[in-house]
Amino acid sequence: MPGPPATPTRPLRVGVLASGEGTNLQALLDTVHGHEAEVVALACDKPDARALVRAAGAGVPSRVFPRDEHATREERDAAIAAWLGAEGVELVVLAGYMAILTPVFVGAFQGRIVNVHPSLLPAFPGIRAIEQAVAHGVEVFGVTVHLVDDGVDTGAILLQDAIRLPGTPTAGQVHDALRPLEHRLLPEAVRRAARGELRPLRAG
Amino acid sequence: MPGPPATPTRPLRVGVLASGEGTNLQALLDTVHGHEAEVVALACDKPDARALVRAAGAGVPSRVFPRDEHATREERDAAIAAWLGAEGVELVVLAGYMAILTPVFVGAFQGRIVNVHPSLLPAFPGIRAIEQAVAHGVEVFGVTVHLVDDGVDTGAILLQDAIRLPGTPTAGQVHDALRPLEHRLLPEAVRRAARGELRPLRAG
Repeated sequence: MPGPPATPTRPLRVGVLASGEGTNLQALLDTVHGHEAEVVALACDKPDARALVRAAGAGVPSRVFPRDEHATREERDAAIAAWLGAEGVELVVLAGYMAILTPVFVGAFQGRIVNVHPSLLPAFPGIRAIEQAVAHGVEVFGVTVHLVDDGVDTGAILLQDAIRLPGTPTAGQVHDALRPLEHRLLPEAVRRAARGELRPLRAG
Repeated sequence: MPGPPATPTRPLRVGVLASGEGTNLQALLDTVHGHEAEVVALACDKPDARALVRAAGAGVPSRVFPRDEHATREERDAAIAAWLGAEGVELVVLAGYMAILTPVFVGAFQGRIVNVHPSLLPAFPGIRAIEQAVAHGVEVFGVTVHLVDDGVDTGAILLQDAIRLPGTPTAGQVHDALRPLEHRLLPEAVRRAARGELRPLRAG
């Protein structure tokens, strides 16, 4: 005799912000989308971002918010937050979004924004993280998924993974080596959020 | 017909500085000692360091340089450097040596001192590195072997390795998990030095 049906859980409504290729968006579309989560909105700052093509291919609504159509960064961020809010977004994923978010946006989705950063934070925050790591001469490279706060890559760590690259890899080689880690960790973070487990590993 | 005999290479003369258990000293005694390298001297700052017992067990000469028998840290460091120099030490290995070396010592063995540090430098330099990492909430922990310069854990990186520890490990658990990495990386660094390859991975 079959047991009672599993409690139907509503997929988590995810909004993605991207600026470029959108490979992390694609990783979400290929894994959690349509299962634990539903990507319901893609916001881009660049009209030629390939991420827009990927969203269209998956039937995900997208909008472009170019910098020059808004008087200030705060106004743009308010417009993005308003659209995501109207779409019922519960979790925001930064998937290669190159603009720094203002407190207007961070405050609107406090504790519900995750970013993937190509270093083992707290080492090498900010831009060109891989180039920083290569210049420093490290042998272990990695990826961090973290909550976004008002600082630059300072929010609580959710997930990390690493790879040892002996020899003298170029930044491009490190970038390629880290991609699979990003594409694994980011869906895992969304799965956790869908289960209501999106919390820091430890009190930091 | 056998080929010509391999060029006999003289083992690298290694001096070790330790303060406590001496497990990294033991790792050297169990691997490179008597092969690529010869541990010819152990200097301790503590008379009750178990490292002294390990050295005695392997027939390695040791000396204790207690802090209170020298007027200043510089004088103690000069005495240690003089003894290691007299023993013909070519490479100095810091194996759990808890005192900070003064420029007197670093200058005497410039570019020929290696240290093993229980973090993925440049993250978490200085004392209580594992506790720092646990408090920060990282998921990837690691070990760095680096050249010693006049800064605190700022010298060029030679080797690194990492381990992912999901969940919420205690500092003690991280410590135990990192030990095998230390015991593998430190002998590897000595092997490289014996081959004349003790150089940073990349220009930092």
